[in-house]
Amino acid sequence: MSQKVVLAFSGGLDTSFCVKYLSEDRGMDVYSVLVDTGGFSDADLKAIEERAYSLGVKSHVTISKTDDYYQQCLKFLVFGNVLKNNTYPLSVSAERIFQAIAAAEYAREIGASAIAHGSTGAGNDQVRFDMAFRIIAPDAEVITPIRDLRLSREAEIEYLKSKGVEQEWHKSAYSINKGLWGTSVGGKETLTSDQFLPESAWPTQVTKTEPETITLTFQHGEIKGVAGETFANSVDAIRKITELAGPFGIGRDIHVGDTIIGIKGRVGFEAPAPLILIKAHHTLEKHVLGKWQLYWKEQLANWYGTMLHEGQFMDPVMRNIETFLADTQAHVSGKVHVLLAPYRFQVLGIESEHDLMSAVFGSYGEMNNAWTGDDVRGFSKIASNQVMIYEKINNQ
Amino acid sequence: MSQKVVLAFSGGLDTSFCVKYLSEDRGMDVYSVLVDTGGFSDADLKAIEERAYSLGVKSHVTISKTDDYYQQCLKFLVFGNVLKNNTYPLSVSAERIFQAIAAAEYAREIGASAIAHGSTGAGNDQVRFDMAFRIIAPDAEVITPIRDLRLSREAEIEYLKSKGVEQEWHKSAYSINKGLWGTSVGGKETLTSDQFLPESAWPTQVTKTEPETITLTFQHGEIKGVAGETFANSVDAIRKITELAGPFGIGRDIHVGDTIIGIKGRVGFEAPAPLILIKAHHTLEKHVLGKWQLYWKEQLANWYGTMLHEGQFMDPVMRNIETFLADTQAHVSGKVHVLLAPYRFQVLGIESEHDLMSAVFGSYGEMNNAWTGDDVRGFSKIASNQVMIYEKINNQ
Amino acid sequence: MSQKVVLAFSGGLDTSFCVKYLSEDRGMDVYSVLVDTGGFSDADLKAIEERAYSLGVKSHVTISKTDDYYQQCLKFLVFGNVLKNNTYPLSVSAERIFQAIAAAEYAREIGASAIAHGSTGAGNDQVRFDMAFRIIAPDAEVITPIRDLRLSREAEIEYLKSKGVEQEWHKSAYSINKGLWGTSVGGKETLTSDQFLPESAWPTQVTKTEPETITLTFQHGEIKGVAGETFANSVDAIRKITELAGPFGIGRDIHVGDTIIGIKGRVGFEAPAPLILIKAHHTLEKHVLGKWQLYWKEQLANWYGTMLHEGQFMDPVMRNIETFLADTQAHVSGKVHVLLAPYRFQVLGIESEHDLMSAVFGSYGEMNNAWTGDDVRGFSKIASNQVMIYEKINNQ
Amino acid sequence: MSQKVVLAFSGGLDTSFCVKYLSEDRGMDVYSVLVDTGGFSDADLKAIEERAYSLGVKSHVTISKTDDYYQQCLKFLVFGNVLKNNTYPLSVSAERIFQAIAAAEYAREIGASAIAHGSTGAGNDQVRFDMAFRIIAPDAEVITPIRDLRLSREAEIEYLKSKGVEQEWHKSAYSINKGLWGTSVGGKETLTSDQFLPESAWPTQVTKTEPETITLTFQHGEIKGVAGETFANSVDAIRKITELAGPFGIGRDIHVGDTIIGIKGRVGFEAPAPLILIKAHHTLEKHVLGKWQLYWKEQLANWYGTMLHEGQFMDPVMRNIETFLADTQAHVSGKVHVLLAPYRFQVLGIESEHDLMSAVFGSYGEMNNAWTGDDVRGFSKIASNQVMIYEKINNQ
Repeated sequence: MSQKVVLAFSGGLDTSFCVKYLSEDRGMDVYSVLVDTGGFSDADLKAIEERAYSLGVKSHVTISKTDDYYQQCLKFLVFGNVLKNNTYPLSVSAERIFQAIAAAEYAREIGASAIAHGSTGAGNDQVRFDMAFRIIAPDAEVITPIRDLRLSREAEIEYLKSKGVEQEWHKSAYSINKGLWGTSVGGKETLTSDQFLPESAWPTQVTKTEPETITLTFQHGEIKGVAGETFANSVDAIRKITELAGPFGIGRDIHVGDTIIGIKGRVGFEAPAPLILIKAHHTLEKHVLGKWQLYWKEQLANWYGTMLHEGQFMDPVMRNIETFLADTQAHVSGKVHVLLAPYRFQVLGIESEHDLMSAVFGSYGEMNNAWTGDDVRGFSKIASNQVMIYEKINNQ
Repeated sequence: MSQKVVLAFSGGLDTSFCVKYLSEDRGMDVYSVLVDTGGFSDADLKAIEERAYSLGVKSHVTISKTDDYYQQCLKFLVFGNVLKNNTYPLSVSAERIFQAIAAAEYAREIGASAIAHGSTGAGNDQVRFDMAFRIIAPDAEVITPIRDLRLSREAEIEYLKSKGVEQEWHKSAYSINKGLWGTSVGGKETLTSDQFLPESAWPTQVTKTEPETITLTFQHGEIKGVAGETFANSVDAIRKITELAGPFGIGRDIHVGDTIIGIKGRVGFEAPAPLILIKAHHTLEKHVLGKWQLYWKEQLANWYGTMLHEGQFMDPVMRNIETFLADTQAHVSGKVHVLLAPYRFQVLGIESEHDLMSAVFGSYGEMNNAWTGDDVRGFSKIASNQVMIYEKINNQ
Repeated sequence: MSQKVVLAFSGGLDTSFCVKYLSEDRGMDVYSVLVDTGGFSDADLKAIEERAYSLGVKSHVTISKTDDYYQQCLKFLVFGNVLKNNTYPLSVSAERIFQAIAAAEYAREIGASAIAHGSTGAGNDQVRFDMAFRIIAPDAEVITPIRDLRLSREAEIEYLKSKGVEQEWHKSAYSINKGLWGTSVGGKETLTSDQFLPESAWPTQVTKTEPETITLTFQHGEIKGVAGETFANSVDAIRKITELAGPFGIGRDIHVGDTIIGIKGRVGFEAPAPLILIKAHHTLEKHVLGKWQLYWKEQLANWYGTMLHEGQFMDPVMRNIETFLADTQAHVSGKVHVLLAPYRFQVLGIESEHDLMSAVFGSYGEMNNAWTGDDVRGFSKIASNQVMIYEKINNQ
Repeated sequence: MSQKVVLAFSGGLDTSFCVKYLSEDRGMDVYSVLVDTGGFSDADLKAIEERAYSLGVKSHVTISKTDDYYQQCLKFLVFGNVLKNNTYPLSVSAERIFQAIAAAEYAREIGASAIAHGSTGAGNDQVRFDMAFRIIAPDAEVITPIRDLRLSREAEIEYLKSKGVEQEWHKSAYSINKGLWGTSVGGKETLTSDQFLPESAWPTQVTKTEPETITLTFQHGEIKGVAGETFANSVDAIRKITELAGPFGIGRDIHVGDTIIGIKGRVGFEAPAPLILIKAHHTLEKHVLGKWQLYWKEQLANWYGTMLHEGQFMDPVMRNIETFLADTQAHVSGKVHVLLAPYRFQVLGIESEHDLMSAVFGSYGEMNNAWTGDDVRGFSKIASNQVMIYEKINNQ
């Protein structure tokens, strides 16, 4: 009986190569799997399945993980207002680790003795796949043909041709990864430090010019309403925001940061929904959470984002942080008004019954009856005691 | 001999009231002081001085602190990329504490036995003044007529009239504080949670519509060049950016956050120079600093901003943090290209000889000779050891 | 009808003074309350009640809060291994805030329009009482006779005599506060920086000299067994440890730290149970938790201890931190062996089915089959990439 | 010409094997180097040199790094009060990285094309050597015979015999590493989780029984005086403390923690000087530093210790942290009194002209004139504002 290998399959050149290589050169039974985290249309999924079988897989499955992806990860990225290096919503980082975990679980489930991915040896994804595979299916051999053989694109095409795969593999100028949490755009300018992506490189072109104001409704930190429409499933709300804001060219930027393997990497992205959601959610939180809740949320969420980025999503501390973040959201409910305009958006204001900026206790800048000037004088005095003493002893 | 009181004087209604009250009702010799941190024109300074004498101060001095303000504070806000709650450059917070310190030092210098400020009992400024006065001049009595008497605006005007001050005190819809590091705008909409400031409320109106690209040059973290012009003094570079970017309406936002006295406060601001400088500087840092330098800078700078905001600038840990931040800037030199457009800007890219994204060691996403796929495989294996063991023991 | 005032009553000189002062001089109905957090014997409680009535309170209640105190606070101090400044188990800090909260809740419950405490103006306790009263019963007047009148001890005794209270108020050399979580000892030497408390000052004298080894059993982070005995209620386990270890003189030290009011304070304490429990629990955690769980627990628990110390127990972030800490304890179960000896103890080792130091995956220092030397070589290579590049670019 | 290889040589079985293997099997010129960080006597150094030549090295050098070790590392461990996991002074971690760096620098200096270490594939040291070699001498081949060949102890002895090395390699029950900053003890009990090391296993036996009190003198955080003797070089002061406290059996413990390779490791150590110094220094700091200095020192120093432990000493953030720590030590000068007794020590008290617990400003627990009860009342009121509002809005 042939060895069973699970292959994380995307339908692209690299994983197509892997099917042929694993099944024909290595004589394995290839079980290809595509993990859908919300970035594929039904037509995409069907085409990928057909491609898999045409290449000769023993079996192909599509595993739908979109809801899990939201419930187990994206939700916490909103709760934590996570933007890596204050910029990047971790669009690809989050998606890839979910795909890797699902593939590894599938391998364990069907008793595969090997598991393969098509990542090269130059990026973050290889580590995410490697780690998820090892942690979830530690007894399975990890096979990485593209990384190990170090073939050029041309050599791969040549190899496939030799196996009778005659498809046209047109090389686009940019490598695009479309997902629920944003679309990444890499190539040309992102390989340098000084260039920005040209207008034409962005997958979503700007077609709206008239500013619009929308209202987002949050319940316990989760997005549940967009522009008058209510959503039982926050995934649909995310899609709605993308649909409304994308044509303004909102949410475009370039992230430069530290890859897991220690070099600096740069990647463009368009992610209107994450950027709007996070800014709106954060503004709401500034009104309803205490000062130290805001502080510690930021610390933990920042760390959460970094570990997620680096493939450490399975670390037990991540579950503890999620528990913390969820616990902070009890009162993060209300409406946030947002202006959408070409290339930018602006949070205008919020409404919440948990708003601590309640006029009942006195507005900022206006006196009230909850405390007197003498109270503040006493506060200032006590609050300056230590430094006053320090200065007296050391500097006066 | 009358008692000497130093009064932090701005020329406005509240501090004008203080002059009369202190000199006539309390019979003190008023030494008014205006601390210039870069927000006043020469004409402003002259007018304020005249006003002071016309009100009857014994002496008026203008203390120029703009360079100190930059060297001892703003510089570190750039080094630390400090935006309070990820939004506000601390335009007023930083300025006020410098003014308070300078006034207190002046009081100590001239041997004043009292020192006064005109803040109300409802905001942050009173605490900043109180604390600086107590720490630097602990033996001086702190007098705060506006806070203590709780007079209405009308009552103050009436009082001044009764003392022969017949000036027209027109009440503008918004309270504006113009400074080197940004202009704050408070009133009407900022007293609610749900409204944004209208176009007309912004001190700098939008007059430019054609996007421009400028290049900023940093040396060891400090801005030294803007759009082709070189500046020996970074203060001038800040002014230049304000001049270029202000007419685009760049850098407008509303900050909502925790006041020192525990309530939430909301304030509008326009601060094109800080927002552009910080984003540009941070992007440069992402290219030239190590991962953990970025991490710890963020932790310390965040704290620095909070303490500065809360009037704790004199705490000795602030000096330690400044030393840390300065130490990280050794290689933060290079150029940053920035697009300016109506209501927004975009960092386009950077150039630096310290750029760690050097093609010499392999580009992100492309293989190279500094390591092999096997190296990464080993890395992933070891890096997943602990969680793999944890899962085996606890969940498998 | 007289005004109702709730008084936090301990039976000592200060609160005895308060009863007379409030009832006779201020003409109020005094509702005295003693909150028992585990530091009183039944005889103590009875004597205090009798004292209260003999002084003329309208009503006296004893509120038993020992279990709440453990469940809502002490438990988390163990989960978090909290020792303030790496030394002090917060024996008094934790107890006082619980007493203050219970008194305030009682005031709200019985509709008292005032609430009083007997703290002086020189310590931490006044702030803990003030804050709890204001947060829980914001509409009640807070009355603090001792702080406000600034009477000397002698004047208080004289006053009481004048009211017919003839009791002998002997002044002991040290002020002692005995509680479930430790006993504090202040006076004489602790008022200086350079002296330690003499042997005679410690409430528990050393009577055991022969070392003993005991085993502590933890379940999900909670102490449930001590020296062969099983405890349904961890409070009893804490008492058992105190009973076993106290006579060795274990857990004595002097804490010096920052008071809430900004000065430095020094206080002796004997707290055998907290010190042994925390060290044992921490050792168990080092075996069963992941590296980053240990790291983040320490950050949050450190903060938790500081806020608890400073009377900020009611801040909402405290609830979030407790949730985090509890979530980390799922696998913190097992046995810890501890040697007790005069003036010291030593954790000897642990046993747990969740121990990550499992020999199955290779012992430290011995090779195994889970990874190869090449894997580590690869790990080291990738893990040094960034600094290698940094050095090449900047220093070579 | 033969290839030059630098070998980090200790004279033990593993590195003796390496000499023969590299010179005879691989035909290389072996340049052995012993880096002395203070753990060797002159006789040791001479014996090791003789051993090296007798085994056939081309050249042997002893590089004295004790002062650098103190100045560039140990000093900061004291400034930061660094005890890994609150227990371990990083005795071996710190020493090994310094040895690795010095060996790598020597390799670069003499133009060696290869560099070798004798670590196995099971511990932390291999990673420390690998990383230092790669960062400092990135072009040199790293050769690790023991790790790669995975020979048993017996096979190594056999091999050496076959090469004419007839020495008796007696295997002691424990592996001991003696250094300036402590001696580690591994073996038998430390391979389990539940056993402590027996009395006989400790290199320094207990010979003192009568308690002694000594005084330590710190200048700007550095130890400069011990028990009446003044030391220009803090290294000598460290040795003096070891000499005085070692015979009491002070400073023994077992550390269990996370190794760099992800497994848990356990190691015994005796480190009287670090433990006494750090506790004494920390106590002094609690008297002279501000609250937030103490807080941030702890954060940064904790991180510093972890990175040092994990071989990341060369990361640029480490230099920034050192700068921060040094900056905090300006006033950390004074005397600390310490009681030494069998198996334990106790810090008794401190004296410093920078002591913030100055009686001038009122003692803790005693009223004074720097503030009034009303000041504290105002402080408490303002400090509870936010939570009071939070409770009103959300829970009342």
